[in-house]
Amino acid sequence: MKVGVIGASGYSGEVLVRLLLGHPSVALSAVTSRQHAGKPLSQVIPALRGQDKGLRFVDSDPAALAAGDIDLFFLALPHGAAATFARALLPAGKKVIDLSADFRVADLATYTKYYGEHRAPELLPQARYVLPELAPDGWESFPLIAAPGCYPTSILLPLAPLLRDGLVSREHIVVNSFSGVSGAGRKVDEAYLYVERTESAKAYGLLKHRHLSEIEEQLGIHAGRPVVIQFNPHLAPMRRGIATTITVPAAPGATLEAILGSWRRAYDGRPFVQILAAGETPDTAYVTGTNRADIAAAHDARTGNFVITSAIDNLVKGASGQAVQIMNLRFGFPETAGLLH
Amino acid sequence: MKVGVIGASGYSGEVLVRLLLGHPSVALSAVTSRQHAGKPLSQVIPALRGQDKGLRFVDSDPAALAAGDIDLFFLALPHGAAATFARALLPAGKKVIDLSADFRVADLATYTKYYGEHRAPELLPQARYVLPELAPDGWESFPLIAAPGCYPTSILLPLAPLLRDGLVSREHIVVNSFSGVSGAGRKVDEAYLYVERTESAKAYGLLKHRHLSEIEEQLGIHAGRPVVIQFNPHLAPMRRGIATTITVPAAPGATLEAILGSWRRAYDGRPFVQILAAGETPDTAYVTGTNRADIAAAHDARTGNFVITSAIDNLVKGASGQAVQIMNLRFGFPETAGLLH
Amino acid sequence: MKVGVIGASGYSGEVLVRLLLGHPSVALSAVTSRQHAGKPLSQVIPALRGQDKGLRFVDSDPAALAAGDIDLFFLALPHGAAATFARALLPAGKKVIDLSADFRVADLATYTKYYGEHRAPELLPQARYVLPELAPDGWESFPLIAAPGCYPTSILLPLAPLLRDGLVSREHIVVNSFSGVSGAGRKVDEAYLYVERTESAKAYGLLKHRHLSEIEEQLGIHAGRPVVIQFNPHLAPMRRGIATTITVPAAPGATLEAILGSWRRAYDGRPFVQILAAGETPDTAYVTGTNRADIAAAHDARTGNFVITSAIDNLVKGASGQAVQIMNLRFGFPETAGLLH
Amino acid sequence: MKVGVIGASGYSGEVLVRLLLGHPSVALSAVTSRQHAGKPLSQVIPALRGQDKGLRFVDSDPAALAAGDIDLFFLALPHGAAATFARALLPAGKKVIDLSADFRVADLATYTKYYGEHRAPELLPQARYVLPELAPDGWESFPLIAAPGCYPTSILLPLAPLLRDGLVSREHIVVNSFSGVSGAGRKVDEAYLYVERTESAKAYGLLKHRHLSEIEEQLGIHAGRPVVIQFNPHLAPMRRGIATTITVPAAPGATLEAILGSWRRAYDGRPFVQILAAGETPDTAYVTGTNRADIAAAHDARTGNFVITSAIDNLVKGASGQAVQIMNLRFGFPETAGLLH
Repeated sequence: MKVGVIGASGYSGEVLVRLLLGHPSVALSAVTSRQHAGKPLSQVIPALRGQDKGLRFVDSDPAALAAGDIDLFFLALPHGAAATFARALLPAGKKVIDLSADFRVADLATYTKYYGEHRAPELLPQARYVLPELAPDGWESFPLIAAPGCYPTSILLPLAPLLRDGLVSREHIVVNSFSGVSGAGRKVDEAYLYVERTESAKAYGLLKHRHLSEIEEQLGIHAGRPVVIQFNPHLAPMRRGIATTITVPAAPGATLEAILGSWRRAYDGRPFVQILAAGETPDTAYVTGTNRADIAAAHDARTGNFVITSAIDNLVKGASGQAVQIMNLRFGFPETAGLLH
Repeated sequence: MKVGVIGASGYSGEVLVRLLLGHPSVALSAVTSRQHAGKPLSQVIPALRGQDKGLRFVDSDPAALAAGDIDLFFLALPHGAAATFARALLPAGKKVIDLSADFRVADLATYTKYYGEHRAPELLPQARYVLPELAPDGWESFPLIAAPGCYPTSILLPLAPLLRDGLVSREHIVVNSFSGVSGAGRKVDEAYLYVERTESAKAYGLLKHRHLSEIEEQLGIHAGRPVVIQFNPHLAPMRRGIATTITVPAAPGATLEAILGSWRRAYDGRPFVQILAAGETPDTAYVTGTNRADIAAAHDARTGNFVITSAIDNLVKGASGQAVQIMNLRFGFPETAGLLH
Repeated sequence: MKVGVIGASGYSGEVLVRLLLGHPSVALSAVTSRQHAGKPLSQVIPALRGQDKGLRFVDSDPAALAAGDIDLFFLALPHGAAATFARALLPAGKKVIDLSADFRVADLATYTKYYGEHRAPELLPQARYVLPELAPDGWESFPLIAAPGCYPTSILLPLAPLLRDGLVSREHIVVNSFSGVSGAGRKVDEAYLYVERTESAKAYGLLKHRHLSEIEEQLGIHAGRPVVIQFNPHLAPMRRGIATTITVPAAPGATLEAILGSWRRAYDGRPFVQILAAGETPDTAYVTGTNRADIAAAHDARTGNFVITSAIDNLVKGASGQAVQIMNLRFGFPETAGLLH
Repeated sequence: MKVGVIGASGYSGEVLVRLLLGHPSVALSAVTSRQHAGKPLSQVIPALRGQDKGLRFVDSDPAALAAGDIDLFFLALPHGAAATFARALLPAGKKVIDLSADFRVADLATYTKYYGEHRAPELLPQARYVLPELAPDGWESFPLIAAPGCYPTSILLPLAPLLRDGLVSREHIVVNSFSGVSGAGRKVDEAYLYVERTESAKAYGLLKHRHLSEIEEQLGIHAGRPVVIQFNPHLAPMRRGIATTITVPAAPGATLEAILGSWRRAYDGRPFVQILAAGETPDTAYVTGTNRADIAAAHDARTGNFVITSAIDNLVKGASGQAVQIMNLRFGFPETAGLLH
């Protein structure tokens, strides 16, 4: 199967290209970048020296791509730009996996509130939000798949099953996440200079982080009722990784064993979610470079809360690895194809 | 005035020695270390090369120190060991500022639960817990001062005034703190190797961190009633600094302006607590090497919570700088003496 | 083919296990560790959670391993210990790839001088030092292969062809290398604590680093005459990677083009050595996680020197990846099998 | 005495402001920044919160500054811009300490070759290059002092006395330096993003680094004859610090003891140069935040070379601390005033 990556100059685009070049069942046939058109991949992504199979960046022309013979496109573009490409590709019968936020939020009003006007609202009915381990049956038939964001992946995997099974309160949910700097993308801004970020831990985007729109919509779907959370994102002085810590009151009678049971029902047999033993906590260092989410839980008898922790690599399970996992499931490849190393 | 540092081989002892060597009003007359007795300070603390005034480590003999002419001792020892020294020094009329946990908790049962048997419970009446900006009047008359821990300092400074003024709920308080690795002390353990900690963010000590004993006792004093919190400490890949994020429901009618007003009443004119402007959040990088705590607050109309953030240098305002600040106030030196650079 | 890893508790053993688990043509049948015998791999190497194929560490019993059905053993042991295992395995017809220093130095006197008494000198005739891109024909017939050290790999790849072709002086060769902290192995020592190493760059092991024995013996072989170099190793505050900078006087008439020609003759078609374009310099960040060595050269008309630079991942091309590359070539697998991702 | 800092928005300007605010004998009366005019210092330099004495940035108007009552100006500007200000200030009788390169090189042709056209060559006769521990007598009478660059400071302090005393060869001098990222200044460029620099060690600026002009001119002055060196600068993943390693052939009969003797003659009694004991090597972590240079030497009987190492903080001894040290000496303050903490 022929695949293409549109907009590969960012960090997640770079990881996506590396994963697809090493994938046993697909041929990476086009990698686009307006900025780098004509250059060999390895000139822009030096980590690929000797491994880019001679590929060069091509220009990002939606019409030309729609007319070509590529079956599946990954959109690694800023929100807004992704919608524009989807608009050109879907009518041509192309399949699309979008890593941007454009089709993650089903409710248009919510999208508009957090991201501004939507550039292709008419496509929303063809789109599905797919966190593979949690997606409802039937998603494979949709031509446009929205891959989840990094923070949402780290929050939904541990929390959604517990809300679905009624084991935790829907109120007083407090989520604190700590992200590596690559989460900000390749943004050339003083705030992301090495000297500014090293030895620096800080909260940012309090109250209004855009991922809230996606997190709360999904939690609401799994809870069967609206869920409002406190989401406190932080920057940590590391390259990759998200560590998330969720504090939530236990539902009456809910036990730690019940939490673990809920997770086992949801994730047993799924290669990319690992439930840690009691007393262990996830560590971003152990998931870096993998498509895995490690999750753990503790019950605090003093407070009546569960403290739930998770760790992922924001660029892999939080973005490009998950997009490849979606492709694998969508097209009948082994779920782990190209994702174990 | 002559001062001594007992147990200066740890990170906070090292910072304490540097601060005292540069202090305009005191003479550092003794620095003890069983392990390093006889060595020049700068041989063990290379950062002091050319600045150690020829001082050498001396052995840690409580009786000899009690018999000497030093007026004030700083105890930079593990808990338990500190009590033993206090027992020898206080009867000799020495003043003591203890950086360990031994005299931070007034309730003996609580201390025992978190730290095990107390080695000098008979001294508790002579001891006072002193976070300078929050300590009740009259503490200067006590011969034995317990300097607060690092996490407690980052939590009590922003939260205590709000509980005292009834602006926040005493329930559903969730505290997440992110600490640099020096918070673990100079512990030679695989878990603290460079390769293990870099690129690693993780929660640890959930439910049972020892600082809980001190944090909740102090919050209870300021609230006038018992307070139980969820405290989630984390390790961040940095050398120094603590970033703390507190989520707490607003009391009925409490506003952001009321929070800021409470802080101004508590901290206006205090050089080492800075209230940030709306929209700013504290950054550990901006307090590293200073004795300052930066604090900020935001009100979330969606959740009804306040999100309160703070940052300190765990080795300075969280330990040694604060101990020097206590000395300055206790002995009538300018509060900032030796603490501005 | 069945392979085993003996002594997998260090950083290079960990990387080796990960590479072999993902290798398409071999079955990892035994992973030994005296310390961890009985534990699942992923309990000791959390990065392998969900990917360890249920393997557990087994005890390190040379006799039992010699009697078993494993064809090839990788020794990831300290020097000395490796020789002991080789002594048991070779007589049983096992093939051995040794990552330790025990069989890297052909001259026994040199080995003794740098490492102390050799525990299995009688095996030296069965051993060959194999840096795949530089090894002389016929090495595949030797049962005991010594894989090169990390510093030597970063130095020999760029320098050996130039000495062989007479393009550089054999005198006044100055090598400065900067290594990530993992190069010291999982050594639980105060010097390797996070707080000690971060923000720290320093020279160490000047004049007498053990790798000198191996580097100079190999350079002498390629030059056809003895070569003595100045080797200045340094520690850099990073996890992985070696950046090496070699300053060497140009031989009379030697040009930059001649250098590049020599490298092309040596490395064209070799997937794991990349020659950078003029003006570029290797960056450890671009080789981390790969088995690649990037090399570059510049000619300084002012000084008459060539300045030659290289970068590798010390745990991959500098250790475990290279060992897998050796296996691939030795047993007829594609050179890149299991080494591209 | 009243002092001013012109162009304080860079990293060295920031450190300079902090040092001058804490200096016991001078009043910081003006801090200029075109970009930040009108803002409080602590708004741009958050590390100064509560410590900026209410100062605000003022606009950079040379004429106004020349007409004012400030006695001494520090120029923390890019080269070229500094010359323009010097041109306005010197005729008004102001004293100037310039942290830029504009007046570091006495030979105009050399300056032009490395930096382009000089904007105020007529001022060169009024200027002196002052590395305090090495400056010839009489420099205090010059109105315009050029403070050395960071790399040159780390190289000249250990090497200049040895050339002066004829203990080392003037040929085959090879200098490798490793600098923290702040050495590049607050440059908003993709190359200096956190994600690009962490885990990255690499050589850069080979053959043609601008500091070569200053280093070789000064070495030539001390040697009494021209000196040409190989200078290989590198970037290390750290915030601050320079570690320099110099390899140089010993002069006939020169011994390690002679090296140490030469250094003692040059530096005994100087507070900011420390000679390490045999076997020790300087570590940037031990000089960070100090105005100290640590230097050490080893003699390699195998190669006949001395290997000489040094470490400084590039922003303190390599820039702003040294400028304050120059001021202290120039105006009769204690050499260490404001520089010990």
